[in-house]
Amino acid sequence: MILDTLEIPIVLAPLAGGPATVDLAVAVSDAGGLGFLAAGYRTAADVREQVGAVRARSERPFGVNVFMPPAVATEPDVYASYVERLQGEADRAGVRLGEPRLDDDDWEAKLAALSELAVPVVSFVFGCPAPEVIAALRARGTSVWVTVTSPAEARQAEDAGADALVLQGYEAGGHRASFTDGDEAPYGLLALLQLVGARANVPLIATGGVGTGRGVAAVLAAGARAAQIGTAFLRCPEAGTSAVHRAALATAAPTALTRAFTGKPARSIVNRFMREHGDAAPSAYPELHHVTAPLRQAARASGDPDVVNLWAGQAHELGSDEPAAVVARRLADEARIALRHANELLGE
Amino acid sequence: MILDTLEIPIVLAPLAGGPATVDLAVAVSDAGGLGFLAAGYRTAADVREQVGAVRARSERPFGVNVFMPPAVATEPDVYASYVERLQGEADRAGVRLGEPRLDDDDWEAKLAALSELAVPVVSFVFGCPAPEVIAALRARGTSVWVTVTSPAEARQAEDAGADALVLQGYEAGGHRASFTDGDEAPYGLLALLQLVGARANVPLIATGGVGTGRGVAAVLAAGARAAQIGTAFLRCPEAGTSAVHRAALATAAPTALTRAFTGKPARSIVNRFMREHGDAAPSAYPELHHVTAPLRQAARASGDPDVVNLWAGQAHELGSDEPAAVVARRLADEARIALRHANELLGE
Repeated sequence: MILDTLEIPIVLAPLAGGPATVDLAVAVSDAGGLGFLAAGYRTAADVREQVGAVRARSERPFGVNVFMPPAVATEPDVYASYVERLQGEADRAGVRLGEPRLDDDDWEAKLAALSELAVPVVSFVFGCPAPEVIAALRARGTSVWVTVTSPAEARQAEDAGADALVLQGYEAGGHRASFTDGDEAPYGLLALLQLVGARANVPLIATGGVGTGRGVAAVLAAGARAAQIGTAFLRCPEAGTSAVHRAALATAAPTALTRAFTGKPARSIVNRFMREHGDAAPSAYPELHHVTAPLRQAARASGDPDVVNLWAGQAHELGSDEPAAVVARRLADEARIALRHANELLGE
Repeated sequence: MILDTLEIPIVLAPLAGGPATVDLAVAVSDAGGLGFLAAGYRTAADVREQVGAVRARSERPFGVNVFMPPAVATEPDVYASYVERLQGEADRAGVRLGEPRLDDDDWEAKLAALSELAVPVVSFVFGCPAPEVIAALRARGTSVWVTVTSPAEARQAEDAGADALVLQGYEAGGHRASFTDGDEAPYGLLALLQLVGARANVPLIATGGVGTGRGVAAVLAAGARAAQIGTAFLRCPEAGTSAVHRAALATAAPTALTRAFTGKPARSIVNRFMREHGDAAPSAYPELHHVTAPLRQAARASGDPDVVNLWAGQAHELGSDEPAAVVARRLADEARIALRHANELLGE
């Protein structure tokens, strides 16, 4: 089990859509944690190249995260009025909206590449792969993780043969990893850990709002084998995070879940785009992801925080801009101190 | 500081509205934790009597929780159509709806009683008392705690002179303790602990979805001095919880936040009443609390789980029906084991 080989129980979150880089993955793995590459929004060829680059630079284990493809296309009438509504944003930014299309994010080609590459860990979000898919990757020596957001999803993933479960709490930045987009009562991370931990027979990795050593210590105490951390690495020099996103992360601005940017619930720092369009945004992923992509790209380029998807977990203001290895080691050191305090309170 | 005198870092949540009893408070205090009485929905005379009863039976410290009075009445047109909507429920149950009235829950008389009684701890929910109120209680030797749900509320309470802060996470059962009912982006407990812990200079007590020893260990590791636990005590024989509520707690039914029962967001096990009326329920507390009270009372009496407010935290299914002292000691024992596991993962 890969988790047993880590020097520090810290896993990098995948951070698809810009922040994930080979540099960041290597830095976290070399610090004794588990670095991660994001296959999401990339071609299979890109993923091959990135895996090769990581392997050329480090002998440590690492993971690759893959988006499960959407089960069905969303009917155009579900999102037509939302697209119309965004035309004003496009005019203002001087860009054309993207085409609302369904795609599977190069699913088959990526699976083939990952099977061939036999990477140490492959994790999935947005659904549970079929048992055959999991078995095929395991046969290549890959440890297969499935990201879940509820006890029911955890049971399904364990039944399908997952080696480990990544439990994503309500606090997490970016997209909810839920199997379906109907998740009206999301679980807080600590409740989810206790509920799944009471039943699961596979290791648990905890993610969502864990931004400090205290947070790492807490999820380990709650039964996780490791903490998966995204937001706390977003401001590291190795990350590909945009300048406008970095600036927002360094504030104490509140976050909220929204479908405004992509048609799938995701946690972002609250900005004008979310406030104005969030209530109108339907469930339509990846169609709306493609529609808003040019808007978000233009806003990142021009540095307009009011139109960029500012993915961030609830504890984002506690991050820093230190190198990733420093962050990872500091989190582990602070976690040890936090556990000592807790031991004292329990008279140990 | 009372918290330093506890043998186990476990505080009973107030559990107003039926479950709170003198027996339950005494059992938790005598087990080495901190028992709590709920002054909410009671007269000042009742509170005096209960405090006397606790003192007659135990020399251990305990607390009393008080509802802050609503700042202003809600305009009738805000809730008129909701009350109309509930008429069908009243007809079906054969009861008359209550009058939608504003009241301050006997605020001045309770404050006077608590000042006179000089109880060890007084905690507040639904707002922050004026600095003068806090100072007056402190002058009587009372430790004053304020329950908060965000970093901003935490700062306000600390500035007002609170001795300690109870941090309530999104996962918590029953009413949100928020100062106002406009809380669109509630914090998960673990994120809230990290954010407030990074700045606060007073002890923190963590509440919300903490139902196991692992959960207790987690919040201590995250920086809390104690865990405040409600749902895990609701099925104890000492609790005044109704039979229909006990039965629902023992299932794995999901919970959600709703204004349907009282006009204030609260977490309940999802039932028909919530599903049918939740989306229509306005912010109008305590007016709607009074309107639905006869409905809820009748449903408790007849054992109808579909109309009772089934307050429960997200981890409710992990509770048990053991005596409260057994629950409290077991939580502490399991917390010690959980910390040992966490220590091993960090190589301590």
